[in-house]
Amino acid sequence: MNNDLATWLVANFLNAFEVLGVLAFALSGLIEAKRKGLDIVGVAMVTAATAFGGGTLRDILLNRRPLFWVEHDWWIWVIIGLTVAALLFLRSSHLEITERAMKWPDAIGLGVFAASGTQIALDLGKSAIVAVIMGVLTAIIGGVLRDLFTNQLPRAFSDQEPYAAVAFVGGWFVVLANSLGLPSMWSVAFGGAIIITLRVLVIALKWRVPSWRK
Amino acid sequence: MNNDLATWLVANFLNAFEVLGVLAFALSGLIEAKRKGLDIVGVAMVTAATAFGGGTLRDILLNRRPLFWVEHDWWIWVIIGLTVAALLFLRSSHLEITERAMKWPDAIGLGVFAASGTQIALDLGKSAIVAVIMGVLTAIIGGVLRDLFTNQLPRAFSDQEPYAAVAFVGGWFVVLANSLGLPSMWSVAFGGAIIITLRVLVIALKWRVPSWRK
Amino acid sequence: MNNDLATWLVANFLNAFEVLGVLAFALSGLIEAKRKGLDIVGVAMVTAATAFGGGTLRDILLNRRPLFWVEHDWWIWVIIGLTVAALLFLRSSHLEITERAMKWPDAIGLGVFAASGTQIALDLGKSAIVAVIMGVLTAIIGGVLRDLFTNQLPRAFSDQEPYAAVAFVGGWFVVLANSLGLPSMWSVAFGGAIIITLRVLVIALKWRVPSWRK
Repeated sequence: MNNDLATWLVANFLNAFEVLGVLAFALSGLIEAKRKGLDIVGVAMVTAATAFGGGTLRDILLNRRPLFWVEHDWWIWVIIGLTVAALLFLRSSHLEITERAMKWPDAIGLGVFAASGTQIALDLGKSAIVAVIMGVLTAIIGGVLRDLFTNQLPRAFSDQEPYAAVAFVGGWFVVLANSLGLPSMWSVAFGGAIIITLRVLVIALKWRVPSWRK
Repeated sequence: MNNDLATWLVANFLNAFEVLGVLAFALSGLIEAKRKGLDIVGVAMVTAATAFGGGTLRDILLNRRPLFWVEHDWWIWVIIGLTVAALLFLRSSHLEITERAMKWPDAIGLGVFAASGTQIALDLGKSAIVAVIMGVLTAIIGGVLRDLFTNQLPRAFSDQEPYAAVAFVGGWFVVLANSLGLPSMWSVAFGGAIIITLRVLVIALKWRVPSWRK
Repeated sequence: MNNDLATWLVANFLNAFEVLGVLAFALSGLIEAKRKGLDIVGVAMVTAATAFGGGTLRDILLNRRPLFWVEHDWWIWVIIGLTVAALLFLRSSHLEITERAMKWPDAIGLGVFAASGTQIALDLGKSAIVAVIMGVLTAIIGGVLRDLFTNQLPRAFSDQEPYAAVAFVGGWFVVLANSLGLPSMWSVAFGGAIIITLRVLVIALKWRVPSWRK
């Protein structure tokens, strides 16, 4: 009974965190697209690509269908709604504040996407390293598409801030949890929590990835 | 008998329009690639990506095979032929004239691609909003690839001109036609005609999408 | 017996050449990513995309799974190892020398990737022109992704040096070998050898693709 309650709580936490994560990714796409002067169609497209690009590439690489946004198609309306709301209410002066505030839910998105991407690949019988890489791609490709569409160097590849690296490390904890026999959902919760914690530490303590010799 | 004639006419119109549409998309890729100084290999690749990129992405997302240009592989020779012809005959001074003249067949491409993309997704049992988005992607991704390969902001995302928006609106007429029980081909013709008409109005009357607050 | 020996030699040559080719592609990604100031995560990602992007796109277009790097997942560790080694040992002053030295193994990569990409498509029953194009895509898309991620015009599309063109010509020799009844492996070796030879001539004699009229 107690166990059922715990499972129910984790499931609901994961669902809520997933919604938060997708919204955070979507908003980061929206803000960047607006800043680069895209029109509302471009903003909607970049917002959608940022939110769903990573999971879509993962599913194409693993040949899974239907895609997330094809199955849960109400998300398309959420993206359209966000874009219209931004058109009506978002002024340029809001952008910077919104972006800084976004860093925290974005960490949640990173954790949920990377951990669930890793788990999905493990459930399909992929090897540990492949699963971890699938988790990393799930978490970062949305942002990479956002940066390609707005004609910039991908931030995840160039800002020296551990982001993909955090997803990579956390993925191994998902693998560990699976090898210890934890059920999928708990493994995702465990790995996701570690990623979110690490990412919050990265932001708070301004950690950087090792840099190059000159 | 009369009905057969009408069906035959629509089928031939659609075929002819499809050829016109693919050619218009291909030429827009060719012109942009030449303008940005790509060499003939680059021009051939960007021409092909502009013509077939949208349909290819749609088919990957929906997991349909064979791809259009794999099944109708003589199109590859058309692209190569266009590139060689451009090498022999196209001077820089021709580019601007050609581009303006392209706007009209491009509207045909937009209509045919968006309407048929929507119909293909509906025929696979996808929901209305997913089908409409597939139509939009079919119509615009070719141009987006053209702009990525030539290192520009995607025009469909930034020029304030309703293009994807027209495909989006027209897609719903394809959905409507299907829900009224029209056969696939007639639905495509109906939705395509609406998209082409809207797009011609957009160009003629210089309509713009709603713009952002400062 | 003699025949077995020859087969064994060709198989081992092809394997060794494939390893050399992937490494050359990976290093070209690594060098470009480092030069553009990406951080180590970005360098690892661009290195992987350059090495595996072409084959991955080919397999997505042809709907083949598992992907090369999913099946041979130790290659992921090679990429990570290369990146860490570059972090420890590669100085900026090494870049230019390394890049010039890379041109020769890169020619091997071009030959092996284009010839094997063509053969894979032929084995799946695709037509000659589709197979040749699949070979070209296998050979060039990695480099195109490298250039997109580092925000440059794709070099394969713009540097006037026959690269994709060499892959295109060589692909037809793979088709010819197949139509003469040669086994797959020999066709790949034959076509690959022609591509490598042509590419070496291109570099040595500074051949250029035909250029545009002004």
